[in-house]
Amino acid sequence: MNTEPAREIDAFLSERLDGYIDETARLCAQPSVSAQGIGLSECADIVAGLLDQRGFAVQHVPTAGAPVVVGRLQGGSQRTLLFYNHYDVQPPEPLELWTSPPFEPVVRDGALYARGAKDDKGEFVARLAAVDAVRSAHGGTLPCGVLFVVEGEEEIGSPHIARFVQEHKDLLACHGAVWEEGGTDAEGRPQVSLGRRGILEVELTVETMRVDAHSGQADVLPSAAWRLLRALASLKGPDERIRIPGFYDAVLPPSPGDVAMLEALPDYEPHLRATYGAREFVLGRSGRALNHAVFEPTCNIQGLTSGYQGPGAKTIIPARAAAKLDFRLVPDQDPDDVFARLRYHLDAEGFADVEAAWIGAMWPSKVPVDDPLVALTARTGEEVYGLPSLLLPLGGGSSPFYAFARPLGIPVVTAGVGYGRNRTHAPDEHVRLNDFLNAARHIARILEGFGDL
Amino acid sequence: MNTEPAREIDAFLSERLDGYIDETARLCAQPSVSAQGIGLSECADIVAGLLDQRGFAVQHVPTAGAPVVVGRLQGGSQRTLLFYNHYDVQPPEPLELWTSPPFEPVVRDGALYARGAKDDKGEFVARLAAVDAVRSAHGGTLPCGVLFVVEGEEEIGSPHIARFVQEHKDLLACHGAVWEEGGTDAEGRPQVSLGRRGILEVELTVETMRVDAHSGQADVLPSAAWRLLRALASLKGPDERIRIPGFYDAVLPPSPGDVAMLEALPDYEPHLRATYGAREFVLGRSGRALNHAVFEPTCNIQGLTSGYQGPGAKTIIPARAAAKLDFRLVPDQDPDDVFARLRYHLDAEGFADVEAAWIGAMWPSKVPVDDPLVALTARTGEEVYGLPSLLLPLGGGSSPFYAFARPLGIPVVTAGVGYGRNRTHAPDEHVRLNDFLNAARHIARILEGFGDL
Repeated sequence: MNTEPAREIDAFLSERLDGYIDETARLCAQPSVSAQGIGLSECADIVAGLLDQRGFAVQHVPTAGAPVVVGRLQGGSQRTLLFYNHYDVQPPEPLELWTSPPFEPVVRDGALYARGAKDDKGEFVARLAAVDAVRSAHGGTLPCGVLFVVEGEEEIGSPHIARFVQEHKDLLACHGAVWEEGGTDAEGRPQVSLGRRGILEVELTVETMRVDAHSGQADVLPSAAWRLLRALASLKGPDERIRIPGFYDAVLPPSPGDVAMLEALPDYEPHLRATYGAREFVLGRSGRALNHAVFEPTCNIQGLTSGYQGPGAKTIIPARAAAKLDFRLVPDQDPDDVFARLRYHLDAEGFADVEAAWIGAMWPSKVPVDDPLVALTARTGEEVYGLPSLLLPLGGGSSPFYAFARPLGIPVVTAGVGYGRNRTHAPDEHVRLNDFLNAARHIARILEGFGDL
Repeated sequence: MNTEPAREIDAFLSERLDGYIDETARLCAQPSVSAQGIGLSECADIVAGLLDQRGFAVQHVPTAGAPVVVGRLQGGSQRTLLFYNHYDVQPPEPLELWTSPPFEPVVRDGALYARGAKDDKGEFVARLAAVDAVRSAHGGTLPCGVLFVVEGEEEIGSPHIARFVQEHKDLLACHGAVWEEGGTDAEGRPQVSLGRRGILEVELTVETMRVDAHSGQADVLPSAAWRLLRALASLKGPDERIRIPGFYDAVLPPSPGDVAMLEALPDYEPHLRATYGAREFVLGRSGRALNHAVFEPTCNIQGLTSGYQGPGAKTIIPARAAAKLDFRLVPDQDPDDVFARLRYHLDAEGFADVEAAWIGAMWPSKVPVDDPLVALTARTGEEVYGLPSLLLPLGGGSSPFYAFARPLGIPVVTAGVGYGRNRTHAPDEHVRLNDFLNAARHIARILEGFGDL
């Protein structure tokens, strides 16, 4: 970017940092706990007010759940950048583990402490600050349009966001998006995540008898535990290959660009060993092979339950057994398709009696490595943080990237105030003031460049 | 048996039935709940008193748990018959489901209702009645010696009985035993059980990480649930064959006599279908093949536990998983040997990280079909009940038959007051007065014949 606006922007943000931290604190002082239905409409109103006072055209769009606040501001180009954020927060409990009360924000040791200080109110206000700074540097006009989409149900799994986007494609027309969160790794290297795996969550249940039976009859009466175990064993071999016919049909291999990015990532093995105490990894993987595995879809058992689980023993044959599964899906797998294939597989393997219940799903989504927004985000990240950006071609987890990327046909990237140890979702959640400033600088630079991509 | 003593015995018992029911009621009025440590020594004293007043030489033998009451009475022959019984009862809860209070015995509709009325105080007093009747018919002398062994921990799994017998072989010298319970099936046919399977109970546990991990890392972090599942699948194939090397080495096939007995048993398939609502049985067995299966040892899963088991989903990889197993063992399998082979098998299959913890064990035990005590018990049962005796060569469950049969070198059979619907262990436990009378008559006839076997 030109040096002159950059210098102006950085000075603008440095001078007003305390003011933006105050603005974040006021937003955090309003509890907005979606899981507990607390303070959502009040918080949506504050968010709408912050957009309105900046001249955004603001709407509260109702959904089957909490309303979505949408704010649009025209820019100097036809191109528009979408910021996805959320105004709800995780429950603050356990309260006794907080050093200061979760909804009484306070700055100490260079950081603002409060529930939502990072996730996602700090992220949201850092973006407002970036918008203010860029406008100031350009005589009041943005070089591109900006569209805020701020929902109120992210912390309960965004159950209505995909449908909301589907039903409001015109309202949401834009050319790229920055996801609700981002930042650096623990060593201060800026990270840009280019996608997320999808997920299919199902519960398998089998009932072989009306009631549990005495285990002295195990030579004749059918065990639900063994039946479930056989069904699960049919899904995946010890080679980790998922045995559902056609499961891999839609899998796209990583592109040469993806492979190059994976090779450039750090070796996370020491971190994984230290954090989890794992003696060995899946299929004996080690070193950078652990990074590459994200392009493998998985079949994970979240939980198993059957029969007697208390102390000692109970001589029963369980009548019922259940397993919760999640399949992490890579581009271009489709959870609807995988669910249908799972049912077909169970029937074909003789497990018609094993019920498969749909719990939930998200679709995979990934921006192409060569999308100009990726290069812009990476380059400006390096400018701000002074270290090369780490590009993560695909995140192992799942989030509704797809809900925007697919229907709107846009690239989605990440940038933000995080540093990997913000205690997000935990007591003493905080955002460091310097991270806030850097995130605002980074977002401002993306806004500067986005109009010309 | 001679008609004359039989007639005298039956008359003696009919005349005094009400008195013996009163005696049972007094014994039941004393709570003696081993699981709750209530009233055991008080009840042991009453039992000792009942034996003492009949001239038995009585001892309270201490164990690491509740004392065993042992009473011996000499007879006219050198041969002695052992009666194994217990003075403890199951907890009476849930109290609200009892028609009358569990420890306030009452006779209604031809049955005595109380906790312990059947299991095992009614059984014990019916044997005392038989002893009294036989002595009366023989001028005060028994035709064989009688040895009562009445323990106080049967309802908590008889944890000390095997050691007690091992350590008191001289005290317990005898030539045969009648087990603590018996009787007829629901159609009034006398049943004689000639043995019990053994059991080995173990818990398999595996821990792959220190803490649960996010399931977005399932491509690299090891799942305890899948690991346990693989270990379990290695134990038994879908053909139900247990894959532990040498597991079947000590298995004795059923003898021709056993096979003949199994063929003579009723077809229990309709009963099993009605009781359990099972659509199909293990290996598709049906009809009398269900009876024959008792000679197959089993590997049963009592319970499975891992990860998240609440409502909805939780995107975790479980760090820990556990399964409780029981192996039902047939003659001459040995739980110590099976446990060692299980450990060897897990190690050999690459599951050295799967811990196997010993929960408990019992050994299999079976009296030979041609033992004279079997014929005596069957013949006298038919005399009393008017229907041919059903001989069960091996019961599917486990009980400490072996604890007496093996160290003492004696045959063990069953006879008693049950009719299959006594609500044993449940509210409204009862013994029918007519069943009590028939059991006393049956036991008396066994005592009459045992001296001459």
